[in-house]
Amino acid sequence: MSYQVDFEPLGRRLRVGRGISVLTAAQQAGVGLASICGGQGTCGRCKVRVLEGQLSPLSETEGERLNPGEIANGYRLACQAEILSDLKLHIPPQSLTAAQRIQVEGQELTVPVVPVVVGCDVRLPPPTLEDIRSDVDRVRDHLVATLGLSDLIVDFAVLRQLSTRLREWGWSGTVGLRGQEVVSFNPLGHEPLGLAVDLGTTKLAGYLLDLETGRTLAMAGAMNPQIAYGEDVMARIAYAMEGEEQAVTLREGAVGAVNDLARNLCTQSDHLPEEIVEAVVVGNTAMHHLFLGLPVRQLGLAPYLPAVSEALDLKAREVELEIAPGGYVHLLPIIAGFVGADHVAMILSTEICEAEGAVLGLDIGTNTEVVLRANGRLVACSTASGPAFEGAHIKDGMRAAEGAIERLRIVASGVEYQTIGDAPPVGLCGSGVLDAVAQLRQLGVVDERGNMGDHPRVRRTEHGPEFVLVAAEEGGNGRDVVLTRGDIGEIQLAKGAIRAGINILLDEAGLSERDIDGVIIAGAFGTYIDVSSAIAIGMFPPLPLERFNQVGNAAGMGAKLALVSKEQRAKAAEIARQVEYIELTNDSRFVDEFARAMYLK
Amino acid sequence: MSYQVDFEPLGRRLRVGRGISVLTAAQQAGVGLASICGGQGTCGRCKVRVLEGQLSPLSETEGERLNPGEIANGYRLACQAEILSDLKLHIPPQSLTAAQRIQVEGQELTVPVVPVVVGCDVRLPPPTLEDIRSDVDRVRDHLVATLGLSDLIVDFAVLRQLSTRLREWGWSGTVGLRGQEVVSFNPLGHEPLGLAVDLGTTKLAGYLLDLETGRTLAMAGAMNPQIAYGEDVMARIAYAMEGEEQAVTLREGAVGAVNDLARNLCTQSDHLPEEIVEAVVVGNTAMHHLFLGLPVRQLGLAPYLPAVSEALDLKAREVELEIAPGGYVHLLPIIAGFVGADHVAMILSTEICEAEGAVLGLDIGTNTEVVLRANGRLVACSTASGPAFEGAHIKDGMRAAEGAIERLRIVASGVEYQTIGDAPPVGLCGSGVLDAVAQLRQLGVVDERGNMGDHPRVRRTEHGPEFVLVAAEEGGNGRDVVLTRGDIGEIQLAKGAIRAGINILLDEAGLSERDIDGVIIAGAFGTYIDVSSAIAIGMFPPLPLERFNQVGNAAGMGAKLALVSKEQRAKAAEIARQVEYIELTNDSRFVDEFARAMYLK
Repeated sequence: MSYQVDFEPLGRRLRVGRGISVLTAAQQAGVGLASICGGQGTCGRCKVRVLEGQLSPLSETEGERLNPGEIANGYRLACQAEILSDLKLHIPPQSLTAAQRIQVEGQELTVPVVPVVVGCDVRLPPPTLEDIRSDVDRVRDHLVATLGLSDLIVDFAVLRQLSTRLREWGWSGTVGLRGQEVVSFNPLGHEPLGLAVDLGTTKLAGYLLDLETGRTLAMAGAMNPQIAYGEDVMARIAYAMEGEEQAVTLREGAVGAVNDLARNLCTQSDHLPEEIVEAVVVGNTAMHHLFLGLPVRQLGLAPYLPAVSEALDLKAREVELEIAPGGYVHLLPIIAGFVGADHVAMILSTEICEAEGAVLGLDIGTNTEVVLRANGRLVACSTASGPAFEGAHIKDGMRAAEGAIERLRIVASGVEYQTIGDAPPVGLCGSGVLDAVAQLRQLGVVDERGNMGDHPRVRRTEHGPEFVLVAAEEGGNGRDVVLTRGDIGEIQLAKGAIRAGINILLDEAGLSERDIDGVIIAGAFGTYIDVSSAIAIGMFPPLPLERFNQVGNAAGMGAKLALVSKEQRAKAAEIARQVEYIELTNDSRFVDEFARAMYLK
Repeated sequence: MSYQVDFEPLGRRLRVGRGISVLTAAQQAGVGLASICGGQGTCGRCKVRVLEGQLSPLSETEGERLNPGEIANGYRLACQAEILSDLKLHIPPQSLTAAQRIQVEGQELTVPVVPVVVGCDVRLPPPTLEDIRSDVDRVRDHLVATLGLSDLIVDFAVLRQLSTRLREWGWSGTVGLRGQEVVSFNPLGHEPLGLAVDLGTTKLAGYLLDLETGRTLAMAGAMNPQIAYGEDVMARIAYAMEGEEQAVTLREGAVGAVNDLARNLCTQSDHLPEEIVEAVVVGNTAMHHLFLGLPVRQLGLAPYLPAVSEALDLKAREVELEIAPGGYVHLLPIIAGFVGADHVAMILSTEICEAEGAVLGLDIGTNTEVVLRANGRLVACSTASGPAFEGAHIKDGMRAAEGAIERLRIVASGVEYQTIGDAPPVGLCGSGVLDAVAQLRQLGVVDERGNMGDHPRVRRTEHGPEFVLVAAEEGGNGRDVVLTRGDIGEIQLAKGAIRAGINILLDEAGLSERDIDGVIIAGAFGTYIDVSSAIAIGMFPPLPLERFNQVGNAAGMGAKLALVSKEQRAKAAEIARQVEYIELTNDSRFVDEFARAMYLK
């Protein structure tokens, strides 16, 4: 007897024998379910939701680890539940390992596809001595007649290729039409592709889409090479202000990274960058300006003004983006100097505007943008949370790469942990650091000021106390993996900034924490973290867990929406107009709130 | 007793004593009146027209040299007429020496000035902590309110400068507004300038205009450096077809020449190229395509198709034109592969479309475009007249530079001539060659086949017979200046091509020569020639001289009109739509007509 098991939204499927656990089935299917305790049912990480089918009855362990709301909604622990029928399961992102969460972001769009560029095949009669229309007129007459356009213009770069290509390709080809403008001319059958990019301060995420279907053909991430010139936006702005050459270096770094990403995506999916006819790039205001080569001095000094805030449609070649020579790059609008197009994209894709009740949205990064939707208003701020959550400034911190501890629990017998790729531990990524601080605080090893008390694993060094999480002999690089007092301080600063931002928005709206109906957590880091750890250290308000929704790279998703839908672009513009911005550095409440929010409680 | 004399349209004025000749007065005023016979009243070149004032009575010589129509219209010979009162005189272009004729082209425009770019001063309130609009919004809000615009966009290159400049210039400056687009931002008080360029196969003419007043601030000519890669358009096309690198060389040559011209014009008038916010470039189809970097292979092969024929508005930076970074270059429309935007400009500025009766328009150059307006139709063709009229392929030919014989008469005592700059003769420019052939034909030294008979000045060389126009001891470079049998053959080919074109257009319209009510002769060469010489060799139909009108650089004037007037641009588009093109290489009548037209009769 065997059953078919479907894992959604990954779309993985396999057949398994009766009675084996969901966790085992997931491992066989290549679904990276989180499991810190190794299937003992004690860590509670491997939650899945049953959509269809039957499992073994709820175990006692599950009754302890799952709350009543979860049980009512069909949640189970994968390590406890045994398969008794064909099964359809939903894996929430929080239950996936980091690498696989990224894959989930590839999920398809749910909006109607109404792209700004459409493909149109042309087959023209060749010229004769009697028919001496110009090459453009020949194309125009055909398209105007076929599509009922009132007029047609041909982009200048396309014009430079058109005559030669028409003759090489036997008077046929596929035109990319953006309104009345021909932005590409490719061989017959090459339908227009689109590129969506989330240009982060630290990382880039790119998506290649079929503009006709809206389907994601490939996705990839990359590091922002600007990082060599400063970890956060202020450092980058300061570098750009040193001189023209430095500004150009940053611009070329960002543009080069996007071009590399585009090439990578095309190689993955067997396409050519020239088939990309439209790009959408979102990023914070500094990334936006540096990418475009706009001046940033005024962004770095109070009152921190962007050069421009509305959405921009630029010829990609004007910014040296190597896609179809006539293609455009669309930049979503900016809200303020420190709330950029990425935040607009996040608000767009998470549909906060349509939410009922009071909803908080957070995009956690080197800068964390916070938005509160309540009483018909959208109020946003930005807060400098620093790079600690990306593993920087943490002694054994590292990026979310193989061997990084992404989850951990301190139990009587020692430390249980899960690493990325199940490799021997070599350091801590952001979510691991967060778990470590939360666990130490909950165990009372660390007090609310962040000071470290006594514990068999605490040792004192000349740089202060540190907690040994993994001993050298167990680790992957022959060194202990530790959490230091300094690391805790970094997390206090980061979480304090975020919590201060949240509190000021609540104050602005006249609400208290308890009034929040939902919290949307966006960004790669936000997707990886254990929300209960974040609550434990006071980064998030102490709300029931089901009010939190970790949505992954919502900015990237917003870029994809704007890529395939004119309506979504219009909506983004409307969002940017609606948002009221609060400049925290200029806000009398900030210093007190920040000081209070640094405590670990 | 002294009188004030005004020379129009040059605007020169001086006071002279009673009774001195107009020629002497003109020489004192620096007005370059043509005078081949040295003031003997025999050459009849120094015609002037009296607008106001009194001169000595008509002399017997004048009665012989001027026809009744000229006398009735107030024409006099400057060498014969003596000044008896204050005087206002009009000097027709034909009576001026070449150098000064060019100056006349600087005359002001007569159309209402409605430029596509207008200047607008802005003075903005600086930002505060309470007013954190983006820099663009600050400019937009001001202009939208001041000018009642519905929206405003800022060109991307201007955007890249805006924030820095606003702060450097104390939140003020002059904006160049093209519709709703900001195309320039310069210091307060720098009004937008415009550049008009006639990009000829051999020469360029450039004009710098004040877009507010339409006034010409400076004008200059330059050689087309492409000439190193071929004298005529076919040679250039062939060179460009050799490869990408060659095509780029030609493009860069043309663009570089226009950039040099723009800088030169700005230096002359104490402006900066960045103040030029709009350019209009006209040229034949090959020059147009090579300047823009469009493919030309299809132009060089039957059926000789342009890549594009409609008017183009391109960002100047896209073609590497170094004007205001956000400025546009407008290219007038093209009629066909060999009737280009320069011809449209010529038809525009000469107002042939509005003419009554049958009017012929010629723009004589390496290619000569001919248009006939008759019976409500506009029919045009192009004919390969070659570079002989520019002094090329002529043994002692030269460009119209100092020492070039521009006019000559063969009289009993020898050869009378006028050189450019009154310098000792060193060669013949086009109009001089034309005069020489006409004089020799009229004297019977040359027969209608172009063969040279006997004459004391004819000598036989191993390369054939030649006529000595100036002996070495009289010349400026120690060599004889001669006209050879071969030179006559070049002129036969050139004039034959032009006349064949004229005849085919007449045939197309069902008209005979006698039906032509007016002939407009455009182009530098056309302005310099003696029309009666051109008639004598059969280049033009034998019509009364008053039906001919030599209008100078009409293409350049058309470019100026399109620069300062949106309506003129619209009219140019309408002209291009109306013109019916006849491809001569594809026309059964051409070979016969050409063979017949080569005879000198």
